[in-house]
Amino acid sequence: MSRAPVDKLIRLLARLPGIGEKSGARLAYFILNSRGKFPEELAAAIIEARNTIKSCSTCNNPDTQDPCEICADDDRDRTIVMVVEEPQDVTVMDKAGVYDGLYHVLGGALSPLAGRGPEDLSFDLLLHRLSAGEIKEVVIATNPSVEGDATAAWMEEQLAGRDYDVKVTRLARGMPVGSQVKYMDELSLRHAVKGRT
Amino acid sequence: MSRAPVDKLIRLLARLPGIGEKSGARLAYFILNSRGKFPEELAAAIIEARNTIKSCSTCNNPDTQDPCEICADDDRDRTIVMVVEEPQDVTVMDKAGVYDGLYHVLGGALSPLAGRGPEDLSFDLLLHRLSAGEIKEVVIATNPSVEGDATAAWMEEQLAGRDYDVKVTRLARGMPVGSQVKYMDELSLRHAVKGRT
Repeated sequence: MSRAPVDKLIRLLARLPGIGEKSGARLAYFILNSRGKFPEELAAAIIEARNTIKSCSTCNNPDTQDPCEICADDDRDRTIVMVVEEPQDVTVMDKAGVYDGLYHVLGGALSPLAGRGPEDLSFDLLLHRLSAGEIKEVVIATNPSVEGDATAAWMEEQLAGRDYDVKVTRLARGMPVGSQVKYMDELSLRHAVKGRT
Repeated sequence: MSRAPVDKLIRLLARLPGIGEKSGARLAYFILNSRGKFPEELAAAIIEARNTIKSCSTCNNPDTQDPCEICADDDRDRTIVMVVEEPQDVTVMDKAGVYDGLYHVLGGALSPLAGRGPEDLSFDLLLHRLSAGEIKEVVIATNPSVEGDATAAWMEEQLAGRDYDVKVTRLARGMPVGSQVKYMDELSLRHAVKGRT
């Protein structure tokens, strides 16, 4: 097969999440046909990121330095930790400029379907941080999904069963800005009514 | 920013078709967190495909050899050429095992919106092939979309205006297998009725 290099590239791209064989082919041909140095830049960026980015040993957030930039930032409120599922959550939350505490990246949510149990999350690392005593509040910010909610409930239970002097809170539920009552799902409306202020 | 390598990777991935900044982040973290040598393999496959795959100078299909494997295959019917938009079309059509002629890859369809005109397609290359006189039939197999149909009509017009002794045909329209009359669009139904056999 003289198309082997393309087929191999397609097969590897198809392993990416949300990319199947057909999208993999589309991406592969886009890469092959692109002008300039895009393919070389992309390959180099993969290698560079892979070689330089490590998980922070304190909060599990990927960074080139350890402790990561956020954990090393002394201007932040070090008494509060927001627990999120993914590194992307840190990026988006931090960009919003509404929170100046620390973070903790779980690395996903509990998911029996995906075979992800407590041992796959960085929860022990969080307990280790709490045992130092500096943290006074844990804000659970898992996604408002079935898995995120189950993970939040499990963490609340775990934290309640231990003797840390720490307040556990969760992000508020309700109507997102720009939404319309007529298009909201029932559960969100229930939260919006129950939590009315 | 000590996250610069991740951000750069996300930015490059976001340039791929159908991938925005959020999906780019998802892909980037998947790559970074993958076990084994997946990132290194992916980077190497990009470079290898880029360095070894060229467009066939006869039919414009990407391959490591020129003429490509298909054009070089003497067991094929060399009197018939199927004109498709993309290399993926060749892959899928050839896998179906219903056609054993040659191909011609246009490199897309005419699209004023995307700024793609006749000079961006490999149509002149097709004319050059036809002038050799060996080809007796051109099967137009552009997609049954607005752009694909416009491209087909334009090619038919171009071919009719020239003095080649060649039959021009198009793929049949109608109901795809597994479809249901009640869910078909009107245009497909019109083709199915008009072309009934």
